[in-house]
Amino acid sequence: MNGMKLFGGVEGGATHSNLVICDGTGKVVGRSKGLGTNHWILGIEECANRIIHMVEMAKDDAGIPRDVPLDSLGLTLSGCEQESSNTELARKVKEMDKYCAQEIIVASDTAGSLFTGATNGGMVLIAGTGSNALLRTPDGQEYGSGGWGYLLGDEGGAYWIAHRTIKIIFDDSDGYRPSPHPTEKVWELVKKYFKAETRADLLPYAYKHFEKSFFAGLTAHLSQLARAGDALSQHVFAEAGAALARHAAALARRAPPARTRVVCVGSVWNSWLALRPGLLAVLAERRINMELELVRLRVSSAMGAAWLAAKHVDYNLPRDDTAFCEVFYTYRPENGKINGHKENGFIGCGCSDFWS
Amino acid sequence: MNGMKLFGGVEGGATHSNLVICDGTGKVVGRSKGLGTNHWILGIEECANRIIHMVEMAKDDAGIPRDVPLDSLGLTLSGCEQESSNTELARKVKEMDKYCAQEIIVASDTAGSLFTGATNGGMVLIAGTGSNALLRTPDGQEYGSGGWGYLLGDEGGAYWIAHRTIKIIFDDSDGYRPSPHPTEKVWELVKKYFKAETRADLLPYAYKHFEKSFFAGLTAHLSQLARAGDALSQHVFAEAGAALARHAAALARRAPPARTRVVCVGSVWNSWLALRPGLLAVLAERRINMELELVRLRVSSAMGAAWLAAKHVDYNLPRDDTAFCEVFYTYRPENGKINGHKENGFIGCGCSDFWS
Repeated sequence: MNGMKLFGGVEGGATHSNLVICDGTGKVVGRSKGLGTNHWILGIEECANRIIHMVEMAKDDAGIPRDVPLDSLGLTLSGCEQESSNTELARKVKEMDKYCAQEIIVASDTAGSLFTGATNGGMVLIAGTGSNALLRTPDGQEYGSGGWGYLLGDEGGAYWIAHRTIKIIFDDSDGYRPSPHPTEKVWELVKKYFKAETRADLLPYAYKHFEKSFFAGLTAHLSQLARAGDALSQHVFAEAGAALARHAAALARRAPPARTRVVCVGSVWNSWLALRPGLLAVLAERRINMELELVRLRVSSAMGAAWLAAKHVDYNLPRDDTAFCEVFYTYRPENGKINGHKENGFIGCGCSDFWS
Repeated sequence: MNGMKLFGGVEGGATHSNLVICDGTGKVVGRSKGLGTNHWILGIEECANRIIHMVEMAKDDAGIPRDVPLDSLGLTLSGCEQESSNTELARKVKEMDKYCAQEIIVASDTAGSLFTGATNGGMVLIAGTGSNALLRTPDGQEYGSGGWGYLLGDEGGAYWIAHRTIKIIFDDSDGYRPSPHPTEKVWELVKKYFKAETRADLLPYAYKHFEKSFFAGLTAHLSQLARAGDALSQHVFAEAGAALARHAAALARRAPPARTRVVCVGSVWNSWLALRPGLLAVLAERRINMELELVRLRVSSAMGAAWLAAKHVDYNLPRDDTAFCEVFYTYRPENGKINGHKENGFIGCGCSDFWS
């Protein structure tokens, strides 16, 4: 193994994690999977433990002796937003296993997505259960929009879509604010999903037994209704698209002119065709005067973490952009007229990870 | 005491309660106060206990022997929305003290406000920490709008106003949605109230240590800013007025034509002058084609509970409307042109119960 470069990267979520080891050509030579690695949930020590174990498994997979340290290891993990605890985690891993890696760099999971999809800077627009948006400029400045959680943010995420839909039904029934479209099909779905007969039956789910993720689970079903042509479901997804576009527009003010890549992460993007009308309307309304290249990732963001690890030791890890991500739409501001690229409409592909 | 009619009424909240005993002329002959009487918090038995104790105290106050039962007793209590538990509570009080009252009728606190301010039917528009709206038609039909709690309703209440204000600041800072007015003064206030320096410092109050009432407490301070001329605070109160008007408009569809009284309850109404522009705009926009007589109560809604108690035994308790409530605004739809009465602008009266 002498002379061979080795860079590790971890994509860490709250419930599961992925690790890759790449050689100096960018080729994946070893992989492993593990449980969640959010140190706010686990504590620093158990988090470090899980990472060390995953590194060992991946070294085994690659046929690398466990006592050969990686040149560097990038950890892009859920919960790693703060510099101080990130430093502590890196120190703990090194302290517990001196053979793990010579250098360790820790960053947020958002950064992991960004470095997988847009190494030279760009945006990440996350629309999973919640939502969040981050811009990293080519010179390394970072700006955020949203990410304030379900009470103060999360616009365009699955919880927000479900909540907004239910609110439209409540308000329409009261006569408080008429729904823009008939509510029957959506209300049938909501009743079925919550095993409810009346609106009052939903209240325990909203208060006493509140679970953001359970609420959010309704959105997968709404997506199916939207696809089947239900106008109200389509309306709410278009609103979600508008909300996501507002994040993009907010960050576009800070982005370099001409062109920015937008890495779209999270299950809500599976409903791209339903998001699109609202998203394009807001980009036009806000007069966004640059190209936005919307991409989805084809690989685990552990790849971006490995790239970041290499960069950390001043090594430029080769990267095949088209293997890493797929452009599914390009927004172009041609005198206010909008022309999209030919799209890869992955919403319609019947892929098995729909709403996973 | 032979031959003298006696009717009791209880206004019951989550933290304190009031009881009055009226004679057959409607004159208050005895009073008492007590702790909260929400049976969902206390259990039925302890709730019944507290009521019996308050009745005894009020009988003592009136010089009525404790073993002389009231002709009837009306309980309009927080938490009494369901017929089945209301019946159980009435039964329990009678079972535990056969001398308490010959008849007992139980209804919601909203009904208590309604029977105090509008015995012949009308609306109640509650804007306290939360919000709620109820219409009772002259023939006894009831319709609601809102009252779905802080996640699905509460528009125009103090929590909603505080939340909306904070959201405007967050969105403006992100560039997500520009504020319609400068945010500086409001942001200074928010920082002071939450002892925060950055937006992130507010997150624990919104999630980990969430307390709806603490959030709502900000609104009293915003009201002062609005009064001092801050445009953003005024904007949010006008939005709250618009929200309350949407409830009124929703219920107006079911109301008898020509004229409806609206009993306005809760501390947010103390900011009437700031609510008014939004409220009137929505009533005009919705083309509400009847007079709405906005009143605030001058007496405890225990008076309405006593009136209800008398009605329950087919006795029409005399009632001095102007002593019970005060008209502070009359909305009149004159060909879409709106003319208000000369108002009693009680917001400006410097009264000690401001935001109590």
